[in-house]
Amino acid sequence: MTLLRDPEPVTIPAREARSVSLRAGDRLVITDVCGGQVGDVFAYNAYDISEHHSAAHTRTHNGRLFPALLGRFVTNRRRPILTYLADSSPGIHDMLIAACDPERYAALGDPVHASCADNLRRAMAERGHEALPFIPQPINIFMRVPVSDIGDLPWLDAPTAPGDTITFRAEMDCIVVVSACPQDHTVINGAGPTPLAMTTYRHTTEETAADAHH
Amino acid sequence: MTLLRDPEPVTIPAREARSVSLRAGDRLVITDVCGGQVGDVFAYNAYDISEHHSAAHTRTHNGRLFPALLGRFVTNRRRPILTYLADSSPGIHDMLIAACDPERYAALGDPVHASCADNLRRAMAERGHEALPFIPQPINIFMRVPVSDIGDLPWLDAPTAPGDTITFRAEMDCIVVVSACPQDHTVINGAGPTPLAMTTYRHTTEETAADAHH
Repeated sequence: MTLLRDPEPVTIPAREARSVSLRAGDRLVITDVCGGQVGDVFAYNAYDISEHHSAAHTRTHNGRLFPALLGRFVTNRRRPILTYLADSSPGIHDMLIAACDPERYAALGDPVHASCADNLRRAMAERGHEALPFIPQPINIFMRVPVSDIGDLPWLDAPTAPGDTITFRAEMDCIVVVSACPQDHTVINGAGPTPLAMTTYRHTTEETAADAHH
Repeated sequence: MTLLRDPEPVTIPAREARSVSLRAGDRLVITDVCGGQVGDVFAYNAYDISEHHSAAHTRTHNGRLFPALLGRFVTNRRRPILTYLADSSPGIHDMLIAACDPERYAALGDPVHASCADNLRRAMAERGHEALPFIPQPINIFMRVPVSDIGDLPWLDAPTAPGDTITFRAEMDCIVVVSACPQDHTVINGAGPTPLAMTTYRHTTEETAADAHH
């Protein structure tokens, strides 16, 4: 088994999203370029988007709010889709808070505003998946929303430093969408939205790896 | 304003689900008949089931794992659908764990088993809504899954006594489905699945109330 890095990392501009197709075994490293930036991560079965990462099923599978390192994210059909493989950040992530959406910004008095929900819709439409039936609960990487002992959810700024990364391994062929959260009405993105970056390592056999070098 | 109680409560047999149509202002009292029984509650906009209660949006709306008393449950469009109006139980409920489904029981080695997901599908099909695109995260009334200080989710038995109730008020015209959870492979339903009951109080004007008495 060999891992081949895609030649160029994909930059996710501040307030935007990008998607990547992964095959089972591929690894995706997401970098918080400037630090203090939340990413909303969504994952769909590459061949049937009615199967997708489900936070509720992942909590149930792991018996935890968020998987422990090497734990798995599962779909609404309870099948592993991603593994939480490595983390150079403080390891604080959220899986409780909904993606920001136009209704959220309308309530904040700023109706014309980029949102993670619209970013997801656009990224999936570019892959031919128009009109998503709903927006799944995202994996909110680098987002700091601790649970208090009475169940309160205070929203704090992301604790990441420039260059911090989280790494996922694909457990099935999947489409992963990452939105650099455009939220600038709360403190979650610190001083304001900044870019993220994605680097993909392709899982390949020695033979195809050798081919790729020619 | 008058509240008129429906003549008969609706019994939800153990392991089954029942649905009720509510108009804005109606109240729904759900009773744990024998005690120790979890109910999975789902709520849909009566006129457009692509709008439904969303746990992620409700957590975001309230800044809490579960609304405080008089707090609101909101939809995936961030509109109030239910209010958490009253509670005679210990007040311990869950909104983190997925509905049990055929995949869950297959993994438990018991593939032919009733599930809250199938109960929801059946209840909605009876109202003409076939082929739900997905199963929303339920409001798991009376379910005791506390969050530990390291984010673990231990599953404990429901702490309710016979006759304990929780009361919701509808904030929009909606369909509410309640499944008496059939889970008997874990301790959540104590000694085993038992029935629930629903009593509906219809919000009506004095005039229609008078009509109803004739």
